[in-house]
Amino acid sequence: MRELYRQDLAQLGIELERMSHNVSRAIERAVKALREGDLAMAEQTIDADERLDDAARNIDEMCVALLALQNPVASDLRLILGALRLSQTMERQGDLARHIALIARSTYPAHSISESAAPLIGRMGDAAVEMGRLEEQLVASQDLDLANKIADKDDVLDDLQTHVRRLVLDDTQDFTHAQIIDLTLAARFLERLGDHTVSVARRVTYIVEGASVHTTDEGGIAGRL
Amino acid sequence: MRELYRQDLAQLGIELERMSHNVSRAIERAVKALREGDLAMAEQTIDADERLDDAARNIDEMCVALLALQNPVASDLRLILGALRLSQTMERQGDLARHIALIARSTYPAHSISESAAPLIGRMGDAAVEMGRLEEQLVASQDLDLANKIADKDDVLDDLQTHVRRLVLDDTQDFTHAQIIDLTLAARFLERLGDHTVSVARRVTYIVEGASVHTTDEGGIAGRL
Repeated sequence: MRELYRQDLAQLGIELERMSHNVSRAIERAVKALREGDLAMAEQTIDADERLDDAARNIDEMCVALLALQNPVASDLRLILGALRLSQTMERQGDLARHIALIARSTYPAHSISESAAPLIGRMGDAAVEMGRLEEQLVASQDLDLANKIADKDDVLDDLQTHVRRLVLDDTQDFTHAQIIDLTLAARFLERLGDHTVSVARRVTYIVEGASVHTTDEGGIAGRL
Repeated sequence: MRELYRQDLAQLGIELERMSHNVSRAIERAVKALREGDLAMAEQTIDADERLDDAARNIDEMCVALLALQNPVASDLRLILGALRLSQTMERQGDLARHIALIARSTYPAHSISESAAPLIGRMGDAAVEMGRLEEQLVASQDLDLANKIADKDDVLDDLQTHVRRLVLDDTQDFTHAQIIDLTLAARFLERLGDHTVSVARRVTYIVEGASVHTTDEGGIAGRL
């Protein structure tokens, strides 16, 4: 019985790692789809979201079974509660990657992001991708030094979002209404991806150290573009 | 020991009801702030968000203590796991209400929403407020008939968001860039509030009936404006 229990906990860790790997891939693909107007990448990201939903459901079911049958305490309980939160956060990241891919797809073969905004959105994309990779490494290694790197990158992402807002607010810039909508939402979704990576970092810290289970979903600035 | 345990579970229910009441109030105020350009309402909504964060943290701590000390099973376990998810969803609703209030405040004393879009945003606001009230009633009564009403209202909200998008996309409409940003984000935040109310309904259903703990955060359409 206890040996099975340890196996189940180890399996839970493996499922979390796998999910964080697939989230990181989804972010990469979504950013590539947006930046390059790559339809195949967009479709792959949209399709992958359903598999991330399934992964989250699977993790949740493992957690509920462990709680119901095994009466876990201390660090095991923290792992299971942390996993319930992680699955939800990473599932939401899959949704956001899909939203970004939907923007890319909706304007294909044209690019969604206007030329003047492309460098800024590109830098936001780079930061989001790098945060996704740090998140994957953190879930796998539980090396809390990575949490600090994640926080720094999130600050960069927030700053870039402010720059995007400033660019869009310039009424002399020749944007169509559709471009403004896409730019506003793309920057918002990229910034939210970063917030969720910060949440993941807090939750892994909770699993390792047993700090508060609670983490607000707002990683950075107030969240307006 | 068991009597204290029952008291703690009852208290958990009371805290959830109180939080859902305060979320419903926050949504009402945010919508009023946006619609009427009411600065006091905006400030109240922004301030209330911190109290909602505290409420969520408090509920989470109660849940963790119950799980760690009481080995709850069956319907008690469902209540506690459901409460952990509800607190997170309602906390996020508080964030969204704050975001809407921040939009209202940022343009004060001018209205954030242009005259041509005000009727549509007004109807989205009405739907979001009504969903917040249904959510409060549902958490208090656990009457699952309310869950169907919530789903219907969410469809209305999603349709309205599509109408807002269509309006904004019309390049002959005389919007400033700032108006397009505010309209895009306000509609997005209102639509997300509705999605979260749908999540709450699914989670209350889980508590009552023991269906899957998992619910995607996307209540309605794919989520683009």
